[in-house]
Amino acid sequence: MSNSITIAIDVMGSDKGPSEIISGAALSRERHPGTKYVFFGDFKEITKALKKHQILNQCSEIISTESVVLPDDKPSQVLRKSQNTSMGSSLEYLKKKKVDALVSAGNTGALMALSKFKLRTMEGISRPAIATTLPHSSGEFVMLDLGANIECDSENLIQFAIMGTEFAKIILAKEKPKIGILNVGTEQEKGKSSLQEASEYLKRSYLSKQFNGFIEGNTITNGHVDVVVTDGFTGNIALKTAEGIAKLCTLYIKNVFSNSFFGKISYFLIKNSLSMLKIKMDPRTRNGALFLGLNGIVVKSHGGADALSFSSAIDIAIDFSKEGVGDKILKSLENIKSIGEVKVD
Amino acid sequence: MSNSITIAIDVMGSDKGPSEIISGAALSRERHPGTKYVFFGDFKEITKALKKHQILNQCSEIISTESVVLPDDKPSQVLRKSQNTSMGSSLEYLKKKKVDALVSAGNTGALMALSKFKLRTMEGISRPAIATTLPHSSGEFVMLDLGANIECDSENLIQFAIMGTEFAKIILAKEKPKIGILNVGTEQEKGKSSLQEASEYLKRSYLSKQFNGFIEGNTITNGHVDVVVTDGFTGNIALKTAEGIAKLCTLYIKNVFSNSFFGKISYFLIKNSLSMLKIKMDPRTRNGALFLGLNGIVVKSHGGADALSFSSAIDIAIDFSKEGVGDKILKSLENIKSIGEVKVD
Repeated sequence: MSNSITIAIDVMGSDKGPSEIISGAALSRERHPGTKYVFFGDFKEITKALKKHQILNQCSEIISTESVVLPDDKPSQVLRKSQNTSMGSSLEYLKKKKVDALVSAGNTGALMALSKFKLRTMEGISRPAIATTLPHSSGEFVMLDLGANIECDSENLIQFAIMGTEFAKIILAKEKPKIGILNVGTEQEKGKSSLQEASEYLKRSYLSKQFNGFIEGNTITNGHVDVVVTDGFTGNIALKTAEGIAKLCTLYIKNVFSNSFFGKISYFLIKNSLSMLKIKMDPRTRNGALFLGLNGIVVKSHGGADALSFSSAIDIAIDFSKEGVGDKILKSLENIKSIGEVKVD
Repeated sequence: MSNSITIAIDVMGSDKGPSEIISGAALSRERHPGTKYVFFGDFKEITKALKKHQILNQCSEIISTESVVLPDDKPSQVLRKSQNTSMGSSLEYLKKKKVDALVSAGNTGALMALSKFKLRTMEGISRPAIATTLPHSSGEFVMLDLGANIECDSENLIQFAIMGTEFAKIILAKEKPKIGILNVGTEQEKGKSSLQEASEYLKRSYLSKQFNGFIEGNTITNGHVDVVVTDGFTGNIALKTAEGIAKLCTLYIKNVFSNSFFGKISYFLIKNSLSMLKIKMDPRTRNGALFLGLNGIVVKSHGGADALSFSSAIDIAIDFSKEGVGDKILKSLENIKSIGEVKVD
């Protein structure tokens, strides 16, 4: 591994096919000159797609794999046949530190199972979580888990709070990020028992001063907390609902400007601001979420990501590799371990 | 009960106090002349607040209650002390058909428990669900449950699908509403087992032609389905996250128009369209959700609803009373029962 960043890309996981993924890599490469790529998947398809992107072609390597992890594959099946898959081989490269990070748009359950199997979770963490940043009224917040774990107990949620806090320290540059647990009400007796237990624990842990208790879906965008903790099922639904609503709002705004004469004039006057608004509200520019809690940087892209969207996932992998986020989290976890408060009573 | 509509209002459940609730009733009364109101709660506070609203005062009755259901009260406590509470007394009036419908902004768990106890669920329904309509790209869809039931099994979800369908037939005026179950993926093996079981059942039920399978959070706003079925925890988080994002988008739009000279000119040019957009994106104009599956019309308002928001919940109660929605659902359920397919195998 040279000084430049090298990103492993599983080209077979996307709903839109390898060509779209490689176009995404080309877009990302324009923003990050010097980055190298290793593509894992069907050799013919990758070669064909790379021909369209000369610069990318020159800094790329192809690892041909015969098998693919399908969206319907169960984690147990994937673990058995992983050797020959693009997902399994790319994770093997990451494990052996031949690359700095991995980006995959594949089956989340399979990617989680394989990542755990190959990279192992950090000491003190039972399950990795998917985390990303989302916008609020005056900045951004971190949310996790976004779909790695359908069912979570209180211990998982506490570990998510710890990992999310370390992630937020780096990504939001906040010394003491505030934490909230996503729930259907703010009172201690609201919601599920796992949430109540996690809340009780955090209240009397070393994170007590940063813990703001429960937070509801309509206040996560207020900017009161920096880390929103939830199970993977709820987090995934919340994230995707947010995307759906943002798309709907964009449509409403479009109609305001296209439905009348004055609307069209206004559009002309504030075209630039509206373009920036469109980018701000476009979920595709926010694609890419990090698997936290593993001994390696794995970025999960949406299965349906297009080139633009996939390029944003690669950007995250590059930025995180440069920042050495994995090592920083590991170091923070070691500090936490020394306090001896990670385990739930 | 005369021919005009009479609405029972529990004034003690709101976070903002009785005065805000009564201001909400006054707003609703302006839109619905002829409606009568029975306010349940602290006599002094209601009398004082009503003095500010002369027209409302003339068509109102006050039932003084001594006790209040608190946000932290557990359903079991509430059931014991319900006799003297504003929530309990207003439900008693609804049960005795002295009023056409009830609106409360109180503790959801308590309202659900008391409503079940007083009104009983419709035959063939194990649990009532909270349902409301939400906007999609070309109209509206029904979503349920939005918070009445934290944990739901497959039988509950199937009953929600049936009730939601009947509700959608009336409220969306669609003969065969399409149904989707909210999940983290569209493949049959994704998500929780309760969702998979409900999906399997619906696929081979009399609703099979209307059932579109699983739907994700980012596609509920596409307009592909008319009824989105989910458990109360997930539904509540999704609904409130949607509200949070809509608020954030409104803020973004406001900034576009206030941050530059041309923005301000544009605002002046399309002021009317923007006002309509603001109303469209304001979650307060959508407050008010129906308890489905009970022998009576109960509308649940947000606990934090202001006067404008509470008035919209009262509007729903008035509209549904006029439409006789309860009777229509009951009739549809009787048809369904005769098919003998409600129960899960």
